[in-house]
Amino acid sequence: MALEDRLRYSTENCSIARTLEIVGEKGTLLVLREAFYGLRRFDEFARVLGCGRAVLAARLRTLVEEEILERTPYQQPTARSRSEYGLTEKGRELFPVLMALLAWGDRWAADPAGPAVEIAHRGCGEPVSVTMNCAVDHGLLTVRDIEARPGPGARPPG
Amino acid sequence: MALEDRLRYSTENCSIARTLEIVGEKGTLLVLREAFYGLRRFDEFARVLGCGRAVLAARLRTLVEEEILERTPYQQPTARSRSEYGLTEKGRELFPVLMALLAWGDRWAADPAGPAVEIAHRGCGEPVSVTMNCAVDHGLLTVRDIEARPGPGARPPG
Repeated sequence: MALEDRLRYSTENCSIARTLEIVGEKGTLLVLREAFYGLRRFDEFARVLGCGRAVLAARLRTLVEEEILERTPYQQPTARSRSEYGLTEKGRELFPVLMALLAWGDRWAADPAGPAVEIAHRGCGEPVSVTMNCAVDHGLLTVRDIEARPGPGARPPG
Repeated sequence: MALEDRLRYSTENCSIARTLEIVGEKGTLLVLREAFYGLRRFDEFARVLGCGRAVLAARLRTLVEEEILERTPYQQPTARSRSEYGLTEKGRELFPVLMALLAWGDRWAADPAGPAVEIAHRGCGEPVSVTMNCAVDHGLLTVRDIEARPGPGARPPG
């Protein structure tokens, strides 16, 4: 798209920017990574991520407010009630973002030994990749095969 | 993964975290968005993104240092030499990250009118989606179908 075309459309309702407004903090995406890996409790997140408790509490609060995580109470014998954090449907649908970040890091920033984590199809065991496909399935696409065009929500700037 | 299993592995060489270290600033991903949409010149990025010139210069410098963008000089008649910024192979392979952010925002944060931008297969015209698939192609996977396991680069913490 040339500049003149780009300037005909507002960037204000860009879905990429809106997603980044919600989960675009690095630390927030790392909390989600651990939620995908199976952590549930505040102390677990704190221990694995090694971040301050106040920072972690703020991140979890944002994710609960955005309905990406849901908080449920649990109680252990002789302990006060605490919370577990589980992914909602809205949260689970963020996994392709993490997969895409992972795949790029595996290819361009991994140690010589290779990736630290592999994502596999449960049961089948084969590695999972994130791919771009068109609706009539012309095979795997790269960015060279695609183009951006105005959608139904496109509007002029201002 | 339970906490005990998670704690057996270092988070230090996580490919998600490494990718975020490089391109995890919101503003950096928005520069890349515009590079994918076709912008090339400093003034174009500045005008569309509306960010300060020093901030933009720093972001572009980082992306060039990381070999995600490459800078090539161009000269217009009667003007001094300037630079154009184009995506490298390493940069083009970041597009699935933006596609995944876009798809999530389209579904969970778009205006009632719908997405502002559509990504289409060039020529064919059908919409493009980002999907997760296993190597033997058991169909589209969701996060419920997958599991994380230690890869060849997994190592103990510390």
